[in-house]
Amino acid sequence: MSRKIRMGMVGGGRGAFIGAVHRMASALDGEIELVCGAFSSDPEKSKASGADFYLSPDRVYGSYAEMIEKEKALPEDVRMDFVSIVTPNHVHYGPAKMALENGFHVVCDKPLCFDMEEARDLERLVEETGLIFALTHNYTGYPMVKQARNMVANGTIGEVRKVVVEYPQGWLSTKLEDSEQKQASWRTDPKRSGIAGSMGDIGTHAENLAEYITGLQIKEMCADLTIFVPGRLLDDDGNVLLRFENGAKGILFASQISAGEENNLRIRIYGTKAGLEWHQQEPNSLQVKWLDRPMEILRTGVGDLAAAAQAHTRLPAGHPEGYLEAFANIYRNFAKHVQARLAGKDPDPVYDFPTVSDGVRGMQFIIKVVESSGTEQKWLSFE
Amino acid sequence: MSRKIRMGMVGGGRGAFIGAVHRMASALDGEIELVCGAFSSDPEKSKASGADFYLSPDRVYGSYAEMIEKEKALPEDVRMDFVSIVTPNHVHYGPAKMALENGFHVVCDKPLCFDMEEARDLERLVEETGLIFALTHNYTGYPMVKQARNMVANGTIGEVRKVVVEYPQGWLSTKLEDSEQKQASWRTDPKRSGIAGSMGDIGTHAENLAEYITGLQIKEMCADLTIFVPGRLLDDDGNVLLRFENGAKGILFASQISAGEENNLRIRIYGTKAGLEWHQQEPNSLQVKWLDRPMEILRTGVGDLAAAAQAHTRLPAGHPEGYLEAFANIYRNFAKHVQARLAGKDPDPVYDFPTVSDGVRGMQFIIKVVESSGTEQKWLSFE
Amino acid sequence: MSRKIRMGMVGGGRGAFIGAVHRMASALDGEIELVCGAFSSDPEKSKASGADFYLSPDRVYGSYAEMIEKEKALPEDVRMDFVSIVTPNHVHYGPAKMALENGFHVVCDKPLCFDMEEARDLERLVEETGLIFALTHNYTGYPMVKQARNMVANGTIGEVRKVVVEYPQGWLSTKLEDSEQKQASWRTDPKRSGIAGSMGDIGTHAENLAEYITGLQIKEMCADLTIFVPGRLLDDDGNVLLRFENGAKGILFASQISAGEENNLRIRIYGTKAGLEWHQQEPNSLQVKWLDRPMEILRTGVGDLAAAAQAHTRLPAGHPEGYLEAFANIYRNFAKHVQARLAGKDPDPVYDFPTVSDGVRGMQFIIKVVESSGTEQKWLSFE
Amino acid sequence: MSRKIRMGMVGGGRGAFIGAVHRMASALDGEIELVCGAFSSDPEKSKASGADFYLSPDRVYGSYAEMIEKEKALPEDVRMDFVSIVTPNHVHYGPAKMALENGFHVVCDKPLCFDMEEARDLERLVEETGLIFALTHNYTGYPMVKQARNMVANGTIGEVRKVVVEYPQGWLSTKLEDSEQKQASWRTDPKRSGIAGSMGDIGTHAENLAEYITGLQIKEMCADLTIFVPGRLLDDDGNVLLRFENGAKGILFASQISAGEENNLRIRIYGTKAGLEWHQQEPNSLQVKWLDRPMEILRTGVGDLAAAAQAHTRLPAGHPEGYLEAFANIYRNFAKHVQARLAGKDPDPVYDFPTVSDGVRGMQFIIKVVESSGTEQKWLSFE
Repeated sequence: MSRKIRMGMVGGGRGAFIGAVHRMASALDGEIELVCGAFSSDPEKSKASGADFYLSPDRVYGSYAEMIEKEKALPEDVRMDFVSIVTPNHVHYGPAKMALENGFHVVCDKPLCFDMEEARDLERLVEETGLIFALTHNYTGYPMVKQARNMVANGTIGEVRKVVVEYPQGWLSTKLEDSEQKQASWRTDPKRSGIAGSMGDIGTHAENLAEYITGLQIKEMCADLTIFVPGRLLDDDGNVLLRFENGAKGILFASQISAGEENNLRIRIYGTKAGLEWHQQEPNSLQVKWLDRPMEILRTGVGDLAAAAQAHTRLPAGHPEGYLEAFANIYRNFAKHVQARLAGKDPDPVYDFPTVSDGVRGMQFIIKVVESSGTEQKWLSFE
Repeated sequence: MSRKIRMGMVGGGRGAFIGAVHRMASALDGEIELVCGAFSSDPEKSKASGADFYLSPDRVYGSYAEMIEKEKALPEDVRMDFVSIVTPNHVHYGPAKMALENGFHVVCDKPLCFDMEEARDLERLVEETGLIFALTHNYTGYPMVKQARNMVANGTIGEVRKVVVEYPQGWLSTKLEDSEQKQASWRTDPKRSGIAGSMGDIGTHAENLAEYITGLQIKEMCADLTIFVPGRLLDDDGNVLLRFENGAKGILFASQISAGEENNLRIRIYGTKAGLEWHQQEPNSLQVKWLDRPMEILRTGVGDLAAAAQAHTRLPAGHPEGYLEAFANIYRNFAKHVQARLAGKDPDPVYDFPTVSDGVRGMQFIIKVVESSGTEQKWLSFE
Repeated sequence: MSRKIRMGMVGGGRGAFIGAVHRMASALDGEIELVCGAFSSDPEKSKASGADFYLSPDRVYGSYAEMIEKEKALPEDVRMDFVSIVTPNHVHYGPAKMALENGFHVVCDKPLCFDMEEARDLERLVEETGLIFALTHNYTGYPMVKQARNMVANGTIGEVRKVVVEYPQGWLSTKLEDSEQKQASWRTDPKRSGIAGSMGDIGTHAENLAEYITGLQIKEMCADLTIFVPGRLLDDDGNVLLRFENGAKGILFASQISAGEENNLRIRIYGTKAGLEWHQQEPNSLQVKWLDRPMEILRTGVGDLAAAAQAHTRLPAGHPEGYLEAFANIYRNFAKHVQARLAGKDPDPVYDFPTVSDGVRGMQFIIKVVESSGTEQKWLSFE
Repeated sequence: MSRKIRMGMVGGGRGAFIGAVHRMASALDGEIELVCGAFSSDPEKSKASGADFYLSPDRVYGSYAEMIEKEKALPEDVRMDFVSIVTPNHVHYGPAKMALENGFHVVCDKPLCFDMEEARDLERLVEETGLIFALTHNYTGYPMVKQARNMVANGTIGEVRKVVVEYPQGWLSTKLEDSEQKQASWRTDPKRSGIAGSMGDIGTHAENLAEYITGLQIKEMCADLTIFVPGRLLDDDGNVLLRFENGAKGILFASQISAGEENNLRIRIYGTKAGLEWHQQEPNSLQVKWLDRPMEILRTGVGDLAAAAQAHTRLPAGHPEGYLEAFANIYRNFAKHVQARLAGKDPDPVYDFPTVSDGVRGMQFIIKVVESSGTEQKWLSFE
């Protein structure tokens, strides 16, 4: 008999941003149930958070290790099915590895982990265990992103020539990390964030989005990263020239000092027949610019969209779906895969999500973009 | 000890639109749990739907009457706390009345019911029982609508002079009710929808939104309703001149034959000092047009917004929240009120929602707008 | 041999707004030459203005009567071909009548004149003399307005069901006429403006635009005009329900107290097959909303536009043309007609412009909308 | 006594695009009169074009050399004051040089000329003769560009950190030069266009705009130019990383294969206090994005704009001004300078325009961007 999938969460206690996002996203479609968690490295905080979420106190743990061990010991029809990891970057690898080694599927926030060694290790573990691993590059969950990917794959816009992907934010324009701001604090700290700041936090989203929609891999890059805010330790801005495997050229920029920008992820893709443009802040529209006829605005829920777009839409046209719905699509699709596994069936490929391999690629992007910025060599290979 | 609030649903089985919306909206914030339902007047369909939602078969009922009776008989710590009514208009009154009479709180889809007699009766019952009753005029759940209401109340835009509220859709441009389309079918059927078509379905949203934001009541109206699609039985378009209690003038139109429009609810409010403009399809922006300085675009999550706007926002700036989040705000606020009741406390007034009285006013609007359209008298009093 | 057409101007001296517009619009295409003028009722001011425009002092006159008399006495290859009348409303009839009676073509600002008697008299004179008379309802000069008109005429959007035309401005939100502001002063003065304020000044543009694009005439109306600013003598806001000859319904509003609005003329037309939307403030786009396929954005200069749209476009796509270019289209077309007359040819009908009959219709609109607002009768016939 | 300034045109005969633009732009404000021209290298075509513009046949010449010689021989109160050069790039230097050597002021289309030697020579000649030389980088003529420049100069946005300037067009997505298309033909021909295609044609506009608004000079660049259309001889796309003299970073891209783009010049400038965004296709708006308060939309004609913005605006708010008006601002300002010279006065500095030095800088940009693209050296100095 089919049932809800049971989630245990690592991180995401009181005051966290992304933990709440994961909880809402996982709850939206009624396919996943939060049953346990290790919400903080401070057991008291973890308990308090568990109470906030109406969990039974005996399912709220003081550490991820305790959670994995104790859940594993519970009867099969009670214990969690998967671990959702929503901690800062430096605490991705540990719980992911342990979860996989103990037979739990994993949903992990991005970037995958802290360095390439960890990344490769997780990739290996996923392969060996055959467990299901989703990385929450949530922007690929939007219906109009699915539509765009489909139009490129179908040849609707012809051969891709140019990609412009940008992700400006402004919230780190001042030295916010000197205040109590928790989000700013860990993101600008090399010990918790890794070797990159804005490039790791949001540049990887841009990279992932560009490759997801175009179906093309970046082959070479030329980067110029900057620390604009005095005293900051990691890049808060970066401009990158790209070359794709098919000869397409590109620009990627990510910035957290673009004053006044909110979360303005945008992508434009120009092919031989048409151009596509999508803005995350108005995610239900996809502009299609034709060579010599009027521009079309594709809208979620309107007309004959690709099956993949329709499968990721919950509402009729004009009922805006946003960030949480896109994020929920990752969780819903993950749940579909787990349910298929439980039922011994193959999952429907329309329910896709970013995997550990996307995470490895993201780590590689971070490493190479930092390396490129530090060298006088113009072009650096992605590999 | 605090706990999730337990919901029983009436209607909303397989294939329904608004039932799924209510389920997602109620699940989003983790405050409400679906525990039972009478999802269809066909017991077999109800059972099948219950299984879709992973409910225990013994909590899936063949009728709302059965649900209310059997749930009432369950132990207090198991039985539902409230009934959510998501049926067509003609099946609002019955379950609402019975729920109230048996001590259950109620969330009811709009419009409140079928005629004025029913409406007054429900209002009386709510008053007598003291139970909590929310009507899902969901558009008032948007943060930027809260912001707008707050700015009017604070005098930021001065005295309101003019209101233009419009709600064009295009989906009934053809005689869709002749197909199997379930949504079209009942909405155009006087037996299930009542005396109005578009005015009841969406005109009431426009009326509610205008009065909610301005804090003003409509005093007089002059309406011109039309049935454009041959053979249709209820209005599919209506234009209304409005006069408000303070002397402000207004225009309201609602249409379901505005070809190519999705769900384009918009409102503009002009005061002596500034104008406000809000579009449901881009709900995270609120335009503020000043008399003699640059227009401002207020955005969810940016700057010093009103407490009411902040209390209805889940995400940082630039992470778009949409229809489900606004709808979820109604449920979340309702849940807060029920939780306060359980805890013997007063609810925080920032968590407001439309009540049975809004529903009575909506019924009055429907009745008067139809009457106005049929008379040669220019101005008809709202009362 | 072909030559530039020679213009004499009445009004439009220093400090005038619309006079400068007429001069720029007439100069843009190099088809018209300003040769003389009576720029002010004050001869000294007229002289000074003439010097500003580099006119020979002997062609600058102290009154329109003097101008018409003296120009008539000049040799045919020197004297003006037409009079351009850019004075306040109460000084349209006099110079127009005298010009026609003396064999000069006329371009006249809108509204045509002061009352119906004057309007009918000018219509009669144009008919009797056979002279060319253009009324500067300039908004019909935009290429995308031509395109919209063409699409309706071709049946592209099907039968018209609904029209929403609106013209909000905010500049008269305060009692600007109490200051020295010349534009506000005459527009709010019944002696110079006539029986209507905002309805005459901008409501007529809305009426003209709606009838021009749809090719339909308004049959009945129901109006609610208001004076919002205390002490003002003419309406500064008006809401009107419309019924068109084919059964289409409409809304027209014009307002000069819509705080923060600039010059936001907009029109939406819904047919059985599609909807059109055009905004004067972004005039190079025309939205086409289809029943069940993606919205198209038609843009000046892009793709296969109607011949009429192309004939009124000067620049390639993406080079925005604005208000002056649209206004210049009226003058350019008028000049084409005068040139054709000089050459003894028929003008190409693609070069259309509003005529004295549009002016008569505009006067009728003003009269009826004021009458409708003052009566308790719901519907008033346009005729 | 003041008078219109007299213009002689080189190039711009029948079928030319930019010649017509120059004529309309120069005519708009009534300060400049076209008195003569050498409109084509084919004397017959030149004559025919002159007749189109109603010129006296004896002022229509077969070559620019003939024009300059014969005009010089005319009486001072008849002969042209300046030469307007609207030919393809390879015919800029010759007429410009000869005009300057013969005492005529010059307006020249961009880019300035063909190579650095020519550019330096013209710069020298302008300096030696003291004549007035305007280069039509017309986009700097927009009021909102003036406003942006002023806001940067005033420190309103703080220290500039990042500049993103982009100029995508799509019209050369196919090999249009193989057809009869005149514009495509010379722009893709190294003999007439020079060493760069898109970078010369539109990249220089982007470079000029960025430096004009920021008041900063580009110090280093790293370019990747591409020829996407097989068989084409010059770049049709280019991506460039920029470093400015103050440490700001930037991205510049120009493309003529961005399918479906019209003429989408846009610029974003992020400072320590705010960001600015301007789009040429909606030129009357300037977005100001503040660090922590609502975004403002500055609009032509609204509120307290900089004096420079106001001095380049002709119409009240909401009356859109476009490309021709911005272009006309260059001509109007040039005319103001010539008039001041005639009157022996200093021109008002608010009436600025791009000069021969901007042209030299543009040539340098072209040369360096091509050099950068061809080298493996990452950063190339602008000088």
